[in-house]
Amino acid sequence: MSEASASNIAHTKFALSQVKAVVFDTFGTVVDWRSGIARSAAPFIARHGLDIAPEAFADAWRKRYQPAMEPIRAGARAYVPLDVLHRENLVDLLGELAPSRQWPEDELDDLNRAWHRLDPWPDAIEGLSRLKRNYIIGPLSNGNIALLVNMARRAGLPWDVILGADVSQAYKPHPTAYTATAAVLGLTPDECMLVAAHNRDLAAARRAGLATGFVPRPTERGAQQTTDLAPEDEWDVVATDFGLLAERLGC
Amino acid sequence: MSEASASNIAHTKFALSQVKAVVFDTFGTVVDWRSGIARSAAPFIARHGLDIAPEAFADAWRKRYQPAMEPIRAGARAYVPLDVLHRENLVDLLGELAPSRQWPEDELDDLNRAWHRLDPWPDAIEGLSRLKRNYIIGPLSNGNIALLVNMARRAGLPWDVILGADVSQAYKPHPTAYTATAAVLGLTPDECMLVAAHNRDLAAARRAGLATGFVPRPTERGAQQTTDLAPEDEWDVVATDFGLLAERLGC
Repeated sequence: MSEASASNIAHTKFALSQVKAVVFDTFGTVVDWRSGIARSAAPFIARHGLDIAPEAFADAWRKRYQPAMEPIRAGARAYVPLDVLHRENLVDLLGELAPSRQWPEDELDDLNRAWHRLDPWPDAIEGLSRLKRNYIIGPLSNGNIALLVNMARRAGLPWDVILGADVSQAYKPHPTAYTATAAVLGLTPDECMLVAAHNRDLAAARRAGLATGFVPRPTERGAQQTTDLAPEDEWDVVATDFGLLAERLGC
Repeated sequence: MSEASASNIAHTKFALSQVKAVVFDTFGTVVDWRSGIARSAAPFIARHGLDIAPEAFADAWRKRYQPAMEPIRAGARAYVPLDVLHRENLVDLLGELAPSRQWPEDELDDLNRAWHRLDPWPDAIEGLSRLKRNYIIGPLSNGNIALLVNMARRAGLPWDVILGADVSQAYKPHPTAYTATAAVLGLTPDECMLVAAHNRDLAAARRAGLATGFVPRPTERGAQQTTDLAPEDEWDVVATDFGLLAERLGC
């Protein structure tokens, strides 16, 4: 059997009508982390005379995100919330930018909460509001509950429920992150759809039995982005924004 | 030091202005479980010819609620969600009402989900909507996430976040139920207020360091209710409904 036909079988096994919850990757898919982090970092950079552009600071901080979760996914470190990992990564980055400098703890705490203050993509709120009519909606994010609830209140994200790493105690793409999320909703994996701008996240969700929706965010990593510009598998739904996603899902 | 002055000290230690999240006991405080369960039980009782009034059925089912959580609070049984305990309690009750009878599994499943279909008290939604302007709001319930999200969507409860036993893996009044809830919100216990119609729940919340709000629900257990009609300690806020509660909290 060719790869393509295996993929078709995976694709056609989903009756989208069985989906009851649509859950969302958040950083990059719902909110624009790069602009938001750069915006918060800019005054910190200026105040401390660091020699780095705000966007490069955002990229360098985010680059430490996946490696920081790896020991937890592998079981070598107990679960800690993403706020803690972000804080460790910030100290690590600043140590690289300005070795042996001391930083005021309250400034680090405030800058770390920049991840709570990210703006949604322009189509996100209207699309989510439409989807909420027919589906349970929530983030399935590696973010922790405090981060996601503060983000939602500031941005106006109309979630029914805040899910993610604090609930599953697992970081995506570990399979438990997907299966535990379905379980706490009282649903089977195939009654849940993950929507993400990242092919790797969707591949893991599909392996865990979830339906998949791809919404590309071609400027998530800036104007020169080269990854995740197109679907790399036959995802169950592909849409260029959340409004079209809602339409495809009958809302 | 007299009981009253100890109580006053506990009372005055709270600057209500430090409260950032208001979390709610749910069964009895936000929703009317007795009428809702009786409504769902009535056709089941009629269909199977059981000799019990729907309200008495609701009371008998609810009576098994606290004892069922006890082994989990004591650490003698691993955490299972309330949907599971409700289901076990239903089977137990039916076994008492009609020994050695068999029951269709799908009917038991549907009746068990009556706990997902409870109506809010008339003042709840408007009061919660007002409180949401200034505070993070969520249930701090022994209910599980699936139950609480289904309830919220049906009833229109405008929660920011669904908290409770599935998140803390502990049943109230175990202290962890309160402290873990504050922790996942990134708050200290004294930045959270529990609102409940039950003095026992508030006493445990206060011991765990939370602020306390009492809203009596004098017909929760029917017209003959004799318990929880009045505050039994100097709770930080007392209000007769959620609208007055919102007013007292500056919303």
